[in-house]
Amino acid sequence: MANDVQRLRERLATVVNLDHAAAVLGWDQQTYMPPGGARARGEQLATLTRLSHEIFTDQETAHLIDLAEQEVRSLPPESVDAALTRVARRDYDKATRVPASLVAELSRHAVEAHAVWVQARETADFPMFVPSLQRSVELSRELAEALGYEDQPYDALLDQFEPGMKTAQVRDIFTTLRPHLIELVQAVASSPVKMDAGILHQEFDEGKQEHVGRLIATRYGYDFTRGRQDRTVHPFETSFSRDDVRITTRFDKDFLGSSLFSTLHESGHAMYEQGVGEDLEGTPLAQGASLGVHESQSRLWENIVGRSRPFWEYFYPTLQETFPERLGQVPMETFYRAVNIVQPSFIRTEADEVTYNLHIMLRFEMELGMLDGSIPAVDANRVWDDLMDQYLGIRPPNDRLGILQDVHWSGGMLGYFSTYALGNILSAQFYAGALRAHPSIPDEIRQGEFATLRHWLSEHVYRYGRMDEPNTLIERATGSPLTIEPYLQYLRTKFGELYRL
Amino acid sequence: MANDVQRLRERLATVVNLDHAAAVLGWDQQTYMPPGGARARGEQLATLTRLSHEIFTDQETAHLIDLAEQEVRSLPPESVDAALTRVARRDYDKATRVPASLVAELSRHAVEAHAVWVQARETADFPMFVPSLQRSVELSRELAEALGYEDQPYDALLDQFEPGMKTAQVRDIFTTLRPHLIELVQAVASSPVKMDAGILHQEFDEGKQEHVGRLIATRYGYDFTRGRQDRTVHPFETSFSRDDVRITTRFDKDFLGSSLFSTLHESGHAMYEQGVGEDLEGTPLAQGASLGVHESQSRLWENIVGRSRPFWEYFYPTLQETFPERLGQVPMETFYRAVNIVQPSFIRTEADEVTYNLHIMLRFEMELGMLDGSIPAVDANRVWDDLMDQYLGIRPPNDRLGILQDVHWSGGMLGYFSTYALGNILSAQFYAGALRAHPSIPDEIRQGEFATLRHWLSEHVYRYGRMDEPNTLIERATGSPLTIEPYLQYLRTKFGELYRL
Repeated sequence: MANDVQRLRERLATVVNLDHAAAVLGWDQQTYMPPGGARARGEQLATLTRLSHEIFTDQETAHLIDLAEQEVRSLPPESVDAALTRVARRDYDKATRVPASLVAELSRHAVEAHAVWVQARETADFPMFVPSLQRSVELSRELAEALGYEDQPYDALLDQFEPGMKTAQVRDIFTTLRPHLIELVQAVASSPVKMDAGILHQEFDEGKQEHVGRLIATRYGYDFTRGRQDRTVHPFETSFSRDDVRITTRFDKDFLGSSLFSTLHESGHAMYEQGVGEDLEGTPLAQGASLGVHESQSRLWENIVGRSRPFWEYFYPTLQETFPERLGQVPMETFYRAVNIVQPSFIRTEADEVTYNLHIMLRFEMELGMLDGSIPAVDANRVWDDLMDQYLGIRPPNDRLGILQDVHWSGGMLGYFSTYALGNILSAQFYAGALRAHPSIPDEIRQGEFATLRHWLSEHVYRYGRMDEPNTLIERATGSPLTIEPYLQYLRTKFGELYRL
Repeated sequence: MANDVQRLRERLATVVNLDHAAAVLGWDQQTYMPPGGARARGEQLATLTRLSHEIFTDQETAHLIDLAEQEVRSLPPESVDAALTRVARRDYDKATRVPASLVAELSRHAVEAHAVWVQARETADFPMFVPSLQRSVELSRELAEALGYEDQPYDALLDQFEPGMKTAQVRDIFTTLRPHLIELVQAVASSPVKMDAGILHQEFDEGKQEHVGRLIATRYGYDFTRGRQDRTVHPFETSFSRDDVRITTRFDKDFLGSSLFSTLHESGHAMYEQGVGEDLEGTPLAQGASLGVHESQSRLWENIVGRSRPFWEYFYPTLQETFPERLGQVPMETFYRAVNIVQPSFIRTEADEVTYNLHIMLRFEMELGMLDGSIPAVDANRVWDDLMDQYLGIRPPNDRLGILQDVHWSGGMLGYFSTYALGNILSAQFYAGALRAHPSIPDEIRQGEFATLRHWLSEHVYRYGRMDEPNTLIERATGSPLTIEPYLQYLRTKFGELYRL
């Protein structure tokens, strides 16, 4: 191994260890920490975050990156050492470009605006939230200027979550996809087929929900000797190393869908982290390539696999055995349809596979408009409602079901939403890639076997961790740049059949 | 607040936060971490420990301590600022006196010797362990020289765990107490009274064991909104702040005594940590005064309260209701006697209140002898067996039940054992102090009320945290220096009555 890169690696290991320690403290805070622990936990996390930042942005790190850059010139760019040096440089530049005063202002604002948002949302009082939203936008502009960009400010925001991806690229994709989605939503609405999700809304024993979720996740290949599942109010996945990747779940005893699909979703994230190459362990490369690529893995296992007919042909009998009183008499097809209903609705997080991306496109348009000033904060709720009408044909009765539903903008987090839609689109592109290589995959799923699919993902996505930017990773894995075709075809085939379109 | 002390306090807060973060990671490691997480966890803990040490032993800390020392000259020595400066100085000197090479050698040795000890213990093969023991003694000598001492090397080792306490003081106390204990053990052996613990060795539902333990701990005053209880192989108490103090328990479904008394024991430790003054939070003063004082609090609640007749007069009906099939027909007095049997035995951790300290005195004698060379490592098992015979009248049939039973010496940890005996002795001294102030305490215990006792401890022990050295704390709280009288009187009264001596 290269000498200077080795020194850089050792320095970064300290930063990685501090960040992982902070992640353990964060996990504990959400799972088991007693209420009294909150104040000190805040101090502990602040210390870890500060030290991590100080050590990473120190002159010594800059010096080691300089040396490593010289050294890796002679190495192939696809080598781990070259990738490590590249990513360290990118992270270093990002971390040092934003002045400490802006970082402080951003976190102060996030805390204050969050409190305002909680109250505004509770009372559906958008005017109360307007000043906070305005400030979020202003700070995002400042952040974009500090980070720097070539074409437009939004590029800088997006690049935080999707390295190398441009606003123009996302806009193209969304603009091409949107009319097809709107058309599909309208076709479903006009279909004579009506489906009912009532069977999911019964009482389901939480212990049994947990058992079934864990059974499927294990079958998928989520390794519980290197992971675990706990309960939290909001489900999430978190990693402390590739060999300690945990998920959390919220169980709703009156709704089976919530815990079940969220377990499959988080397991998808977890398998990605567990599958990162062992040679990347302990470096900043040992994580997902981007939020979008990460989301593609969770969506693939949640939706493309987990809401497919072959999947339930295998697992439905087990589900019936687990809940004989609830599902014993319900045919598989009824259940399959219940988990695949398409229905425009107000809340993004509850949206189905077809309407979900329209919720995101709305937010993307609004972020661009707010950032360039064409949508003043004070008018944002009206614009929101108009776009909902235009995209989904429904109009929120109040701002709680409209613009106030998401936490992101209160935290000043513009540029984040797009990654959800990119994840959905990519999930189909990756799955199509796997299917081309192994046409037997659906048959294997029908047998409850997932190894071929998982191995393909492992070989083409997981093991690279954060070595490549998303565009590079996507093209190498699937042979083409990011494209909507597989996604559109997936939706049309699946919902065309379901709704007899 | 003094300015320079405030700067010192801020610097120490970083160290405290790192140490508490490490404690969270340690807790997670023992409770919930999946097996795969071990390797990375080791790295994370090493990073936190290293940074904590680096920051604490930095020139800047030394400089701030110097400034603070000047500043607190004008303050009363019992002020928090003065205490903080004093303790920071003591810790700094200790941390900087031991050369990094010796620290590294000690931890390397601890890892290696531990592995040897595990194997030697399993096969009762003392000769296999001799070289490790020898090395532990040599390193302890080096450590003592590095730490420095006035009278004898053992002082330096003891001072790590009992600041300010001298070997001569401990030796006096042990020498005075020993013949009385031996006499008491012999008197019990000759007593016609025979007691039987059989009722404790039945099957007890683990969930119910947990419920009862938690009920008593809550009644004691262990605040679960600032604490929690989890399961581990070896029970312990750990704190991440005074408002997040956790205990762990091991449940044995075939033995009620294990979980029950260990829960009361760890709750005693926990109440101490929860009771540290709020003004000490976030400083190195927010912990127990010493291991011995800490142990006095666990032993007080476990034994002096938790194995007393008034206590069970109140709680036994609840215990019977919890386990009606096991205890419904068993009279309270039978149960009370079962949890108070005195019987010489080989294993320290299973020893009763009367014999326990003799196990410790044996170890104390051996540590002194090994350290001054009068007991060569190669003969240590024979000396052990002879002392067992002399103190307890029994001879271990093998070294597994003898010298190989404890982990401490493999880790090079000489000087630690004494703190257990000091804790026992002190538990009675503190209790006697509380009783003098509030003679109603036993009657309150009979009503399941513990507030008066807890408040006395809180006022005289808990709230001071680590502000004072043990000898100062003891004298202020009880009006006399460390003494064996209350302890001896407690044992004689309790077991005299039980065994009709």
